[in-house]
Amino acid sequence: MLKALLFDVFGTIVDWRGSIVDEGAAWGRVKGLEIDWGDFADRWRAGYQPAMAKVRRGELPWTKLDDLHRVILAEVLEEFDIRGLTEAEKDDWTRVWHRLRPWPDAVPGLARLRQRYTIAPLSNGNVALLTDMAKRAGLPWDVILSAELARHYKPDRECYLTAVELLSLQPDDVMMVAAHVPDLEAARRVGLRTGFIYRPLEYGPGRAADRAAAGQFDVVADDVIALDRALASRGADR
Amino acid sequence: MLKALLFDVFGTIVDWRGSIVDEGAAWGRVKGLEIDWGDFADRWRAGYQPAMAKVRRGELPWTKLDDLHRVILAEVLEEFDIRGLTEAEKDDWTRVWHRLRPWPDAVPGLARLRQRYTIAPLSNGNVALLTDMAKRAGLPWDVILSAELARHYKPDRECYLTAVELLSLQPDDVMMVAAHVPDLEAARRVGLRTGFIYRPLEYGPGRAADRAAAGQFDVVADDVIALDRALASRGADR
Repeated sequence: MLKALLFDVFGTIVDWRGSIVDEGAAWGRVKGLEIDWGDFADRWRAGYQPAMAKVRRGELPWTKLDDLHRVILAEVLEEFDIRGLTEAEKDDWTRVWHRLRPWPDAVPGLARLRQRYTIAPLSNGNVALLTDMAKRAGLPWDVILSAELARHYKPDRECYLTAVELLSLQPDDVMMVAAHVPDLEAARRVGLRTGFIYRPLEYGPGRAADRAAAGQFDVVADDVIALDRALASRGADR
Repeated sequence: MLKALLFDVFGTIVDWRGSIVDEGAAWGRVKGLEIDWGDFADRWRAGYQPAMAKVRRGELPWTKLDDLHRVILAEVLEEFDIRGLTEAEKDDWTRVWHRLRPWPDAVPGLARLRQRYTIAPLSNGNVALLTDMAKRAGLPWDVILSAELARHYKPDRECYLTAVELLSLQPDDVMMVAAHVPDLEAARRVGLRTGFIYRPLEYGPGRAADRAAAGQFDVVADDVIALDRALASRGADR
């Protein structure tokens, strides 16, 4: 019986790119910087997979995502020739990932799902990042789950299985929900149910985002509200 | 600067004894049992420290509190000569610890504190227990922290330090709040601030509960609402 839903966060619940573009543009006006903030956000995000891969391969010890973001930021600032930031300014910029804004359907959709299921993030973001984000954005999680609790980044199997174990559930009681096919495929391999949400604007206007065909996952929906409707219509015990 | 408050739960936030007495009495009427449910609750709780001590000393591997509660329940049922329960009934009884009710000041007090601080349980209860309890009782935690995340029961130092690390804070940014002197003394030894709450009825009417003198801890308060007032009156940055 489905009892809990785990949500990918960056891209699935919050608009990381749009949030960074808006905050960067506001900050750039103050600092007199002429930067393509979409490029800046893309470059920052592009450093994320290789950095986590180093942790997954054991080339780096366990490192919180905040600390990976800080290292990548230093590279991106150099690449964009942004100089002279204080350490406090770099720390504050790194915490932009704590301030990402939800897609418009996320908070109302989660509030509905929460009435019938335990809901939690299962993100590569660290616990403090996810806690700050939830508090600021009003994400109504029942519990914060994170790769940090397994010290294994998604899509390592330990990440999903640790979350299931902390909920004292079986994998089949739990659905992973994400806008990314590889995340759902990894969750399915260890026995979780899967829900796909389509986020066409994740990578910016005109850029390709992951798509899923009807039937490719247990549920395929256009947003969190539609996911709630789809689960309600097929009965909670399926 | 004080940024987060960690709360002991059993006794400090919820009335474990009163909740078990009430649920036991209702269940006893259905089953025709003549039991002193206060004694039953006390006996169940009395098994808790020795069971955790076995885990702390390494005589048992890490075991969730739910599983310790289940083992102790079997002993208590035998002692009270309650026979013939199904496994499902024993599981349901074990989950009475997920259904404990908050003291009347707890939810409104936490709601006020949450406006200025990150608030979390730091309990020997496992994550699923604390999550179920919060959902049912409306405890407005920002994040669920538990001994289970350190795999060390309080008062082991690892329990407190893991919580601080997951919040990405320093010990001095965090206050442990409890109705129990040994919990606060252990938190203080590893650098946390301390807040004592007096719960005279924890062990039942007429039984002694821990007391603290003014000045014995950073804050000494009569309930969670009074803790909020005390912190507000001395300024949030102290």
